[in-house]
Amino acid sequence: MAAPAPTTQQEMRRRNLARVLHAVADGGPLSRAAVATRIGLTRTAVSTLVDELLGAGLLVELGPGRSGTPGRPGTALALSDRGPCGIGAEIGVDHLAVCAVDLRGEVRARIAVDAVNRDSAPGPVLRRLASLVREVAEEVRGAGLHPAGLAVAVPGLIARGTTTVVQAPNLGWTDLDLAPHLRGDVLGTAGAAVCAVDNEANLGALAELWLGDHTPSPEDFVHVSAEIGIGAAIVVGGELLRGTRGFAGELGHVPVRPEGRPCACGGVGCLEQYAGEEAVLRAAGLDPRAMAAGHPGPGARMDLLAGRAEAGDRAVRRALDEAGTALGTALTGTVNLLDPQTVVLGGALARLAPWLLPSLERELDRRIAGPPPVVVSRLGPDGPLLGAAHSVVRAVLDDPLAQRA
Amino acid sequence: MAAPAPTTQQEMRRRNLARVLHAVADGGPLSRAAVATRIGLTRTAVSTLVDELLGAGLLVELGPGRSGTPGRPGTALALSDRGPCGIGAEIGVDHLAVCAVDLRGEVRARIAVDAVNRDSAPGPVLRRLASLVREVAEEVRGAGLHPAGLAVAVPGLIARGTTTVVQAPNLGWTDLDLAPHLRGDVLGTAGAAVCAVDNEANLGALAELWLGDHTPSPEDFVHVSAEIGIGAAIVVGGELLRGTRGFAGELGHVPVRPEGRPCACGGVGCLEQYAGEEAVLRAAGLDPRAMAAGHPGPGARMDLLAGRAEAGDRAVRRALDEAGTALGTALTGTVNLLDPQTVVLGGALARLAPWLLPSLERELDRRIAGPPPVVVSRLGPDGPLLGAAHSVVRAVLDDPLAQRA
Repeated sequence: MAAPAPTTQQEMRRRNLARVLHAVADGGPLSRAAVATRIGLTRTAVSTLVDELLGAGLLVELGPGRSGTPGRPGTALALSDRGPCGIGAEIGVDHLAVCAVDLRGEVRARIAVDAVNRDSAPGPVLRRLASLVREVAEEVRGAGLHPAGLAVAVPGLIARGTTTVVQAPNLGWTDLDLAPHLRGDVLGTAGAAVCAVDNEANLGALAELWLGDHTPSPEDFVHVSAEIGIGAAIVVGGELLRGTRGFAGELGHVPVRPEGRPCACGGVGCLEQYAGEEAVLRAAGLDPRAMAAGHPGPGARMDLLAGRAEAGDRAVRRALDEAGTALGTALTGTVNLLDPQTVVLGGALARLAPWLLPSLERELDRRIAGPPPVVVSRLGPDGPLLGAAHSVVRAVLDDPLAQRA
Repeated sequence: MAAPAPTTQQEMRRRNLARVLHAVADGGPLSRAAVATRIGLTRTAVSTLVDELLGAGLLVELGPGRSGTPGRPGTALALSDRGPCGIGAEIGVDHLAVCAVDLRGEVRARIAVDAVNRDSAPGPVLRRLASLVREVAEEVRGAGLHPAGLAVAVPGLIARGTTTVVQAPNLGWTDLDLAPHLRGDVLGTAGAAVCAVDNEANLGALAELWLGDHTPSPEDFVHVSAEIGIGAAIVVGGELLRGTRGFAGELGHVPVRPEGRPCACGGVGCLEQYAGEEAVLRAAGLDPRAMAAGHPGPGARMDLLAGRAEAGDRAVRRALDEAGTALGTALTGTVNLLDPQTVVLGGALARLAPWLLPSLERELDRRIAGPPPVVVSRLGPDGPLLGAAHSVVRAVLDDPLAQRA
């Protein structure tokens, strides 16, 4: 079927409400007239939609001001900073984090704690996360906001369209549905609240799409990140490419030395064996287990590597140079298959970019005529957490009526 | 913007007309009542839309018959076999082909001729193609059809959304806009007629999507084909993934032996050097130039290889086994990145599947836990030509009003 919905008045109204909200989100504050111009509807039609959104507490009037178009001043409309907000959570291998983001995109509360989640029993980890979520929800409720939903970033494979972790190797979790642990009373809201679970690399890429400061914002990119493993996410036309099962973006298991080192995944010569955190530590002459014990916490080993590289440590620099080459080989295949506009290095990899990029770009140049630029994300390691919270906010903007159900 | 059009009555009507046509295309003949049930509109609304489509000559009434739903019989609606039709054309390295497909998907005319298009001057090739197009258009006009547009399959990179061949290495064409050569009087229709140019691998994949007989029809697949080079096309959610410039699907230049043979593209160890036609001929101890001279025509060398493999030729079988392994390595990366539902071997590769598949699947199994099935297309080498003609038919079904402009 090439001709999708909407086809009813009800659906058309729902879409137009979303268009008004997005217009204000992208260009606000705006007058009713400016909104009408932006979305190509009559001012009368827009006024009806705006009244409904004001009534629902999603928009507020800032009082008379200059409209975005020539003519008489109109009342400026803005997204509410007291309406619904999104709660994002992140389960890292060695940390937990929760934040709340309002409709305007402002972070209104944030908690992060160190934790030992590697090979953990899920129950205690999820109970601790739920308690952090409750804490953040209470804090924002005090500021007049109400949580519209929760999205959780997990370093693992999530079955598409579900809340089930199929496999999170570093947590040691398999076939685990997180929803029963995190739904309902955790947010202190009605059962209708969104509860979503997604791969951390996916949410990091969405954060880059929604919050990245590259101009023009690329609609087609490959986002490469790393915590312990190497993850990637593919954005095409402004949408995540999820794959049939939800497992797309497994760049870490692209073969780069087809007859090389065996990988924990069962394969041979996977990128992770040449550019993953453990591989880089080992190549630099460091013991991954000792390093993990001595330098716990999110990004701690990557920070250590960056510090040593900065100080001129030759073994570390050589190890990062080799990792960059391996990344370049894997990305050559990726670029040939997907023809992206840019490649973005995000998460902990962004921190290491100064020592990865030269060999990575050399490898791309050697193999591809006119490769796309490789850019470094400025979101840092908070990408997945912010992406999670913003995904809830986007769900509200995309379907404002659902909030009132 | 997450809230797309349509937002006006006019756009809604246009979409609903398309939905009626697609419902009849997918399930016809259907009564008005059955159409209404399928697309979820009232029977009154559907009758108005149907009347308009009857008037435009896109639908016809077959006379009273059983409707698709229980109840009284209704007049059955079918797509017209005398309305608009799509013209598809293919520029191969050693052939030209043109066909016409009606709204019902029937091939109504077809011409194919051998040609020596390698390293050719474009003018004479395109003049010859235009003359074949005119011949086919005249033939179908005699049967009461009128050509709604022309789509051309080319073995090369086409700039996205344009009719410009950026590079077709085997034809020796660069930066060539085909539209001025093929527009207007070629079809003998008004200037509004569609004239599209697309990569042959893309059109082959679309043919598989629209006409393939795999059940359920996969919406997410990688289609691998070969003429002289190795091409692939990626279908995600029933849509082609085109890439930023339109160059996605270059599987032939994914590195499979990163420090291996130099490739004509400037890279090193590309798949094409291990599984392309020339590489396989050479690995089988045959001289590619002599073979090309002695066995011209579309798929002729592939047919020869298949014949020899069938007869038990050890060198050919070993060469195909090695090519299958290289394909498997490249597809391992592809599957990890895209998580497709299936991999489809199409075009000339389908012919060679019996000798490629064992090593290809062995390689996937060795590197991926639970790889997707690899299936063989039954469309054969006609895929790109059929895909081209059907793409014009789909454009008519998707926007029936445009026909009357």
